[in-house]
Amino acid sequence: MKRKLFDDWNAYLDVAESNDPAADVVSFDSRKEGREVRVDGTLAHQPKGLGSVAVAAGIKHEGVLDLSVVRLDEPGMAAGVFTKSRCPSYSVKWDKEKLSDGRAQLLAVVSKNANVFTPRGEEDTRTMARWLASEFAVDPNDVVLSCTGVIGVPLPMTKIEAALSGLSKKLRPGALDGVARAILTTDRGPKVCSVRVGDIVACAMAKGAGMIEPNMATMLVYFFTNADVPPGKLKSILVEAVERTFNSISVDSDTSTSDTVVVFSTRRVPLDADGEVDLVAAIRCMSIKLARDIVAQSEGATKLIECTVRVDSSVDEAKVIAKKVVNSPLVKTAIYGGDPNWGRIAMAIGKPDAGRVTPPIAPTDVTIEMMGQVLFRRSEPVSTDLDALSRSIKAASRVSIDVVIGEGRHAAKVWGCDLSPRYVEINSEYMT
Amino acid sequence: MKRKLFDDWNAYLDVAESNDPAADVVSFDSRKEGREVRVDGTLAHQPKGLGSVAVAAGIKHEGVLDLSVVRLDEPGMAAGVFTKSRCPSYSVKWDKEKLSDGRAQLLAVVSKNANVFTPRGEEDTRTMARWLASEFAVDPNDVVLSCTGVIGVPLPMTKIEAALSGLSKKLRPGALDGVARAILTTDRGPKVCSVRVGDIVACAMAKGAGMIEPNMATMLVYFFTNADVPPGKLKSILVEAVERTFNSISVDSDTSTSDTVVVFSTRRVPLDADGEVDLVAAIRCMSIKLARDIVAQSEGATKLIECTVRVDSSVDEAKVIAKKVVNSPLVKTAIYGGDPNWGRIAMAIGKPDAGRVTPPIAPTDVTIEMMGQVLFRRSEPVSTDLDALSRSIKAASRVSIDVVIGEGRHAAKVWGCDLSPRYVEINSEYMT
Repeated sequence: MKRKLFDDWNAYLDVAESNDPAADVVSFDSRKEGREVRVDGTLAHQPKGLGSVAVAAGIKHEGVLDLSVVRLDEPGMAAGVFTKSRCPSYSVKWDKEKLSDGRAQLLAVVSKNANVFTPRGEEDTRTMARWLASEFAVDPNDVVLSCTGVIGVPLPMTKIEAALSGLSKKLRPGALDGVARAILTTDRGPKVCSVRVGDIVACAMAKGAGMIEPNMATMLVYFFTNADVPPGKLKSILVEAVERTFNSISVDSDTSTSDTVVVFSTRRVPLDADGEVDLVAAIRCMSIKLARDIVAQSEGATKLIECTVRVDSSVDEAKVIAKKVVNSPLVKTAIYGGDPNWGRIAMAIGKPDAGRVTPPIAPTDVTIEMMGQVLFRRSEPVSTDLDALSRSIKAASRVSIDVVIGEGRHAAKVWGCDLSPRYVEINSEYMT
Repeated sequence: MKRKLFDDWNAYLDVAESNDPAADVVSFDSRKEGREVRVDGTLAHQPKGLGSVAVAAGIKHEGVLDLSVVRLDEPGMAAGVFTKSRCPSYSVKWDKEKLSDGRAQLLAVVSKNANVFTPRGEEDTRTMARWLASEFAVDPNDVVLSCTGVIGVPLPMTKIEAALSGLSKKLRPGALDGVARAILTTDRGPKVCSVRVGDIVACAMAKGAGMIEPNMATMLVYFFTNADVPPGKLKSILVEAVERTFNSISVDSDTSTSDTVVVFSTRRVPLDADGEVDLVAAIRCMSIKLARDIVAQSEGATKLIECTVRVDSSVDEAKVIAKKVVNSPLVKTAIYGGDPNWGRIAMAIGKPDAGRVTPPIAPTDVTIEMMGQVLFRRSEPVSTDLDALSRSIKAASRVSIDVVIGEGRHAAKVWGCDLSPRYVEINSEYMT
């Protein structure tokens, strides 16, 4: 099928279409600079006006980086998007409240302990924020706090208090690479990127979706930029980017209590209209890059699945269906085995939603492709060399699935991964 | 927590509470007979007034039973409940239309081919029904037809026509054991049961949820009874039983295009009020037995998971949450590994629903038990011998998970299974 660009977003999403490893490059055309800007896969570009420190506080094990702090030199702007879990963590609740004014100066991340379903979780969160505010000389209301790791184990508050004592003296300008390592739990490695376009600098780091501790796939993502956009605008840029990227990935359909994405701005570089367009593009492209990295590097995954669904009703509906495809255990196991089993994709697109009535889908409206090859077109299976297709799936690190239902006016792309015996092994190990 | 019987249904559901193998017995107290009636795990009791035949038609392989017919001597009553898939199979569409008058005389089941996403699927369905009606001397509108097996492969109509020719001469009274074998695909073995209470006889057979062909876990269930209940009543009895049993199981959250449950009645035994109560109980208990058997025998499963959730809002909400627990890959892998990881259960009960806003769940409202041992009670982890609990999970063929949120006035029980490397192996094998 022809890959039409139905809206702006699809131009970005098409960045990730190809199975060519070169597609790992994510780039955008800068409005301001009139040239292509590539997202750098390192933290080469870090905004000025912030310092950071990462230490081993002994949260769970000794000698492992597990507590990190980023401090903006002056109070800046921040906006966050958080887990939709019905049981959000205490730090998520704290952050939502404190970010309601769009202002923040400090980020602290505790890794290896999620402080969720703990008896004194709320109290411990407040205490930590108070300690941080005091040590780093900021308003407690400007503290953003994340915890990730094991569930149900109280935070070792004595160790945290000891680690925080005098820690502000160790702040170094920038130095975000240490933070990017400290926020990890069982990740394969840091996931970072950065962009410079004109005066604008933005960088980001992510943690997840390794099966943590092994408890769950908490995703933490932090952006830092120097761009000064109007209050409210920062939030809307983030919300839109998250919806199409971090909210469009799925490792195993499980939702963490602690998922967090926050963008911080030092407000040092005022933006004109073109600069704002570039910032939006930068945040989107960095989000695509990190979202894809999270899935591709999730534990037990051997292949990234990129599923694009086009429907006539809405982008949301397209996304719901695409998530059914990448979350179907039968589709995931087929991809793992290199089986071009489009029947399972047909089954997955028909899966009903709890409590929602959805119209029937006629096979005469459906087209299914894998790796760019049409396997089923409008009620007719299309004859293909399935053995060759199987070989190409087996050899690929990314497998594309494309579904069109009807004319396909609205498109959504979702990233998932295959289901391997290794996933089961990793996640069935006894936790203690 | 105390197991209160909140409503009639829970009395039935408690049948399955224990991890004692003896709990495989499902029984009810007969209103009419004033005694306990046990569901028999065989087809010892079959209603009179019907005949059947099963043959090897060569649908996919030669010499394998794959076409079966049950014919009521006279037109009888029937009611069906079908898949909620948005892409239902052609035979499901046919059955829904033909059962709208509550009348049926013939059941035909084709196994090893689902006739789904096939170019001439609708036409082939009509043709088969016409052939069946002609060969077995029934009205085509009284034909119920199921197909299960591989997707996207046209039915071998020439072979089916040949197999049907003269087949009516081979009908034998009862003989449902052959049909129970012929409807299987990759099941471990037949799943059947029967009940006699006074003059009422009812029996049932099920197929699924082996990972079929390997395509999906189609579930087919057929009940046959001699009880003459008012039109409409048969449907409501079935709908209610299905909701609490077959719609309360999940192997991998995937929904087949062909799931079918139909009850047929020869109408030979008129029912008084007590008899109707007994019939309802019999259908419920048989449904519990077969639903549990389907999950426990699903391919790759090593343990049955019985999850009971009690909430204050409604039975439906309790069921939605219980399904999240048994469908969570992280919970399923933990159970496989014998890991009493209640943190994953806490995560699963908080999972949000697409397009539905649900209130937060406070940890202070939550109690979580595994195997009858409280692990978390209202914000406090409860200290337990986790190693002993792990050993008992490893040794068990059934693992119970009990969750109470709030006072827990409404309860739902859901059956699922663990996720093993074997599930991945079976379902990642190349289909050809």
